[in-house]
Order: sequence, then C-alpha cells, then structure tokens
Amino acid sequence: MKQMEEMILAEGQVLPGDILKVGSFLNQNIDTTLLHQTGDEIARLYEGCGVSKVLTIEASGIAIAAAAGMTMGVPVLFAKKHRTSNVDGDVYAAKVHSFTHGVDYNIVVSSDYLLPTDRVLIVDDFLANGHALRGLMDLCEQAHCEMVGVAIAIEKCFTGAGDELRAQGVRIESMAMIESMSAHEIVFRS
Amino acid sequence: MKQMEEMILAEGQVLPGDILKVGSFLNQNIDTTLLHQTGDEIARLYEGCGVSKVLTIEASGIAIAAAAGMTMGVPVLFAKKHRTSNVDGDVYAAKVHSFTHGVDYNIVVSSDYLLPTDRVLIVDDFLANGHALRGLMDLCEQAHCEMVGVAIAIEKCFTGAGDELRAQGVRIESMAMIESMSAHEIVFRS
Repeated sequence: MKQMEEMILAEGQVLPGDILKVGSFLNQNIDTTLLHQTGDEIARLYEGCGVSKVLTIEASGIAIAAAAGMTMGVPVLFAKKHRTSNVDGDVYAAKVHSFTHGVDYNIVVSSDYLLPTDRVLIVDDFLANGHALRGLMDLCEQAHCEMVGVAIAIEKCFTGAGDELRAQGVRIESMAMIESMSAHEIVFRS
Repeated sequence: MKQMEEMILAEGQVLPGDILKVGSFLNQNIDTTLLHQTGDEIARLYEGCGVSKVLTIEASGIAIAAAAGMTMGVPVLFAKKHRTSNVDGDVYAAKVHSFTHGVDYNIVVSSDYLLPTDRVLIVDDFLANGHALRGLMDLCEQAHCEMVGVAIAIEKCFTGAGDELRAQGVRIESMAMIESMSAHEIVFRS
C-alpha cells in the first residue's frame, strides 16, 4: 500500500537491533487518515472471503483491527497479554515470546468470543519473527474456527517468518513489506 | 446515547464489586456497528471545539478513540501503562491506581506527541473512580496543552467522580450514565 510505504519513508526511524520506530503515525500517535486507508485496503483485499471476525492482540493491533472491522462490518476481538502463567476461566491461551522485551507472556481470549463457526481474519501492526501471529493462529486452532488470512501493517520480510508461513499456505497481506533496512535506506519488496 | 444504553441492557452483566461486564460488545469483543455510532456521536458532541488530538489509554480505550479520531480527522495518541516506576526518555508520566487489579501503574506518553499547541479530547471506555482520567489530565497539564473535554462510553455515576470533575468545570460527555446497578436492574441517568 503506497500510503504506508510513503509514511514509513517520511517518518520511520531505523534503530539498532532491527527496530523500526513508527510511533509518530502507527503505534503510539496514530495518523487516522492512514488508519482509515489501511482499514479500507484490508477490507478490499479480503472482500468476499466471508470473514466473520477480526482477531488482534493488545495494544497496537487494536486501532488497525478496529478500522478494518468497521469497514467490513464485523466484530473485532483482541487477545489480552498476561505476564502470569495462571489463566483462569473458560479461555484459550497461547505462550508468546517477545524479543523486544525479552519475556514470555500468555495471550488470552475468552472462549465465549471465538467460536467454531467463526471465519477469522488476524490483524496486527507488525510481522517480524511471527511469534505473536503464531500465537493468534494457535488460539484459532483451539477454538476450531477457520483462519481465513492475515493482514499486517508492516512486515519485516528479512526475518523470513512471513514467507515461511506463506509456504505453509497461510494467506498474508502486508501493507508494507520491508526487504531490508538501515539507518540510511529502507527497501520495500515490489 | 440510546444504542449504548440498549446494548448494556441487552448484554451487560453486573458482577459483585460493582463490576459491569461488557466484554461481549465493548472491551474485548467489540461490536463495530456500536463502535462506529460511538465515534460519530463523540465527533458530533465536540464539533466546532477545535480538537486537534484524541488522547486515550491502552488497551480498551483505543478502539473508541480510533473511531472518534477517524470521524473527526485528527490523530489518536494512546498512553501506555507501565508497572515499573522507572520511565526513560523524554516522556510525560503519571501514577494511576487500579482498583480492578489492586496495583499502581504509570501511564506514559512520549513528549514528542503531546504538544503545547494541542487541543485534546480525552476518550476512554469507563469512568468509574476517575483515577485513569485524572492521570490523563495530568499528562495534558505537563504538556501545557488545552484539555477541551472528555468522552466516555460508560460512566458509573454512583461513584461521584464524574460529577466532581464536572463541578470543577471539566466537560464530560458519557454515552451511557449509570445511576445505579444490581444483578436485577440497571438504571440510567435521564
């Protein structure tokens, strides 16, 4: 998506450790024009796929999922992150490792809200190592629902995680696909 | 707002400890029709007030803030919650006590994203004891920006916190105002 790439080039900052800082428009201060365009583009890409629910993870996936869900006219469910390993009640839970924060955490959704009849579109802001995405896919498997596909704002292609999942048959649509990045240059997949 | 009240009556569950469970439509599984209506209503209420930024707090405020911000055409900034007391870098931070979880936490925004020239609308899902709201107001004071008003999905009027702030001159618009609630009955302020 041209607008996402242009915004990354204009405002993204590449920091040591392969970190792309996009807080000025995506994941802390949110540009709502770009957000609207992103929601519309995700809805366009998955039109006719019978999506019944958008699934994301707190916190920075929520705005993008909400934009997509409003355009598509379907509910948005977000998994919560818990640092503790004890998870109560009727929930689906999966363990995810965060490289950014160097910790394991559980992602959890109530089993009331993810149903075997659901056709789920997973939405998130970043796809880097794929751990959060695999956790969300795990929740869908536990709920026996159909995972229709994935929509990501920014994919770090150089990790290989997105292409590995594509090779396994997962449909992943990323608004911007970064092949390589340094402090001097960001190269997108064409 | 009629639609919010109707949804609370249809799906809200009052639990011991004055907890109103609205996870099925507001703060875990999000009804995007209601979300759209809420965003539009907030935009209507604050039309002509020169709002330049919507400020909220992760995680359950984000979808509502995003809906309002998209309709109003202004950016949405969300404060992050930190359990640690050490906050690095150029940030504004305020301490908030959570009655739900029985802990203190810091709410933090980067000082790059909240400017003295901003006219801020604070948005959140709940107003109960007002601690999170006072924390967000504190961030606005630190940034020397103008706090235009507050928009809340559900206010628990019986705590008195909202009316206390109104008496101090703060404009608070709540989509549903609960005067009293029990397992048998929820009474709204008319």
